Amino acid sequence: MAVNSPLPVAADLKPVRGIDIGYAQAGIKKPNRKDLLVMKLAEGATVAGVFTKNRFCAAPVQVSKANLAAVANGGKPIRALVVNTGNANAGTGEPGLANAQATCAEVARLLGIDAQQVLPFSTGVILEPLPVQKIVAGLPAAIENLKEDNWFNAAEAIMTTDTQPKAASLTTSIGGQPVTMTGISKGAGMIKPNMATMLGYLAIDAKVAQPVLDELVRYAADRSFNCITIDGDTSTNDSFIIVATGAGALQVDAAEGAVYEELRDAVTGISRHLAQQIIRDGEGATKFITISVEGGRDVEECRKIAYSIAHSPLVKTAFFASDPNLGRILAAVGYAGVDDLDTTKLDLYLDDVLVAQAGGRNPAYREEDGQRVMKKAEILVRVTLGRGDAEATVWTCDLSHDYVSINADYRS
Amino acid sequence: MAVNSPLPVAADLKPVRGIDIGYAQAGIKKPNRKDLLVMKLAEGATVAGVFTKNRFCAAPVQVSKANLAAVANGGKPIRALVVNTGNANAGTGEPGLANAQATCAEVARLLGIDAQQVLPFSTGVILEPLPVQKIVAGLPAAIENLKEDNWFNAAEAIMTTDTQPKAASLTTSIGGQPVTMTGISKGAGMIKPNMATMLGYLAIDAKVAQPVLDELVRYAADRSFNCITIDGDTSTNDSFIIVATGAGALQVDAAEGAVYEELRDAVTGISRHLAQQIIRDGEGATKFITISVEGGRDVEECRKIAYSIAHSPLVKTAFFASDPNLGRILAAVGYAGVDDLDTTKLDLYLDDVLVAQAGGRNPAYREEDGQRVMKKAEILVRVTLGRGDAEATVWTCDLSHDYVSINADYRS
Repeated sequence: MAVNSPLPVAADLKPVRGIDIGYAQAGIKKPNRKDLLVMKLAEGATVAGVFTKNRFCAAPVQVSKANLAAVANGGKPIRALVVNTGNANAGTGEPGLANAQATCAEVARLLGIDAQQVLPFSTGVILEPLPVQKIVAGLPAAIENLKEDNWFNAAEAIMTTDTQPKAASLTTSIGGQPVTMTGISKGAGMIKPNMATMLGYLAIDAKVAQPVLDELVRYAADRSFNCITIDGDTSTNDSFIIVATGAGALQVDAAEGAVYEELRDAVTGISRHLAQQIIRDGEGATKFITISVEGGRDVEECRKIAYSIAHSPLVKTAFFASDPNLGRILAAVGYAGVDDLDTTKLDLYLDDVLVAQAGGRNPAYREEDGQRVMKKAEILVRVTLGRGDAEATVWTCDLSHDYVSINADYRS
Repeated sequence: MAVNSPLPVAADLKPVRGIDIGYAQAGIKKPNRKDLLVMKLAEGATVAGVFTKNRFCAAPVQVSKANLAAVANGGKPIRALVVNTGNANAGTGEPGLANAQATCAEVARLLGIDAQQVLPFSTGVILEPLPVQKIVAGLPAAIENLKEDNWFNAAEAIMTTDTQPKAASLTTSIGGQPVTMTGISKGAGMIKPNMATMLGYLAIDAKVAQPVLDELVRYAADRSFNCITIDGDTSTNDSFIIVATGAGALQVDAAEGAVYEELRDAVTGISRHLAQQIIRDGEGATKFITISVEGGRDVEECRKIAYSIAHSPLVKTAFFASDPNLGRILAAVGYAGVDDLDTTKLDLYLDDVLVAQAGGRNPAYREEDGQRVMKKAEILVRVTLGRGDAEATVWTCDLSHDYVSINADYRS
């Protein structure tokens, strides 16, 4: 089903020294399904994250943010992450918060740490009580099988409507030191920044100072998970976490200089790969669309226009149909909210085909050229605004019958 | 197909003295289909309109705005409207403008008026050249059958993907004088203000001064056509026009006082009826959803939240499935962009069922109560924010398989 997205191979997912992973089948929503994940971090690890901006942010997001804030205020470091699928624990009020905290407390008890040293995450249906007793009952099994070489299982354990696990691994050399980084992600619907309905976890075996990691996670998220959209629905639970275990030789103390930039670019690259896998596995997706808007006055207006195109149901259904009904793209540009846009300076390309020039149909454009591109599984939409040097890129997918079927059936 | 929307009956559509209507089958996109409409206005008529805010506003919209502006600057009054379906004449650059003007010139020649006294309108596919010669060839037939009692044919002549004609008529007494008003509208997809992909025309047999009519058309549009959305796509061609023919006894010279308010409310009511018919006939629509957001600080934030709910594909597919997956509504509220929203003050009702209270699930809420409401064809979503007195209402429909089918097939 997913667009040009081969399954990750377990053997390709390198363990990252300093992080152990365990999972369980806790029966949270359905039986016989990996739905609970524990990640145990070595002493000395640093952790940073970015979270949903949805005002209904879920209880576990609130607890994770509070526990990270406690570290910043001199508290004990984060030593464990716990993730459940099958229930988002969002829109659940005070009982939801208590359930998220109870989950942390049980992980802490089993690992011999403090509850505040645990970050909880949930994904699944909103507005339903978290079955915390099932999670508590499942935790011993997850902790029982903690080991370094469990990334593929971890990728499977966080899936919801995903049709395939999402993971990537990189071994490289940065500043002359060997570095391994491995990450997983999940998400297929309710996907739009900030953030997407997604969970993403990336571990690096370098030692990265807390302020550097804080900078790094925002930089990478803005260029990866915050550039994707499936349906424009921003979830209540989105989280992207980077763990630097400190177990390897590389040490980065400042967010500047060549070594930092090498690390930053490697992290951004792998984050983008994890983010794009989410689009390729978007609910009902049959096309992977890159939307690039160039020549804008600032990045914000380029993003506005790119998202306007990416969210248009009419554009998305045209991609699904492989129908070069490309006036719909112009219409989406026109209503993006850039009030002083001069449409007579705008060009529209589909891959290498110049469709519209100076705001009107390119006289040399032939329907069959558009048709040829529209039939591809991967398509570049490029809009040039002719009013500046800024640019932005967004990745999205088409809107198909299967999207409707999946979301009309999600809870059944 | 349309939701609780009986076909208008030709006999119920009252002629409005001072406006004659003619139509033709010009074969613009398909043969044997009414696709060209001419409305001829009596001497002394006033005309006002509101138009799309899409930056790619179509050539006819540009010409109509210019011709209305010319009247405001002392030019001759508008005496005719001409509408074609099958082609939007948008994204067509200079040749598109020339074609819109050529259409006006031909109408003017046939009616013995100036080209600037004609307002042109187009609706259909974007980015394709207007077959102006077919329009010119069809105009004599349309003008041949000009008559007062042609409203039902007019409603049919402006349809595109509409499954049924949309029209309404009202005879009433305002300020002691008999008044007749009749209107038509079209639109089914690419529907979002400002404006929707829609054309709307309303004629009144009163004499209404130009500044009053200008005020009236904005007032009514803001409470009708600008409160509907099907897919969030704002078209390049939207237009809503009110004609006051001056043929009746009522005369309104100022936008104040009891008589003006009676007229304003009657016009707003019939405009809302025409707008809601568009939603009821929304592409693939199976449900008519009213979204009411109350207790906001200002109307703008209420509208933001209402549209966020109305545009969420996840909310819309849940309605299609009659699935009370109502956490999706909370998520849409949360990402609407009201940054200081306190979710703990928010209640959510589905019709009379209190689903969420103080931002969390209402303990007394039972799934079967939500299910009962979701199965209905007309549903009220009511959100109370608890932070002020402002409110806003938006009308929308669900997102079904047929929406995808219709838009994946539109040009074929």
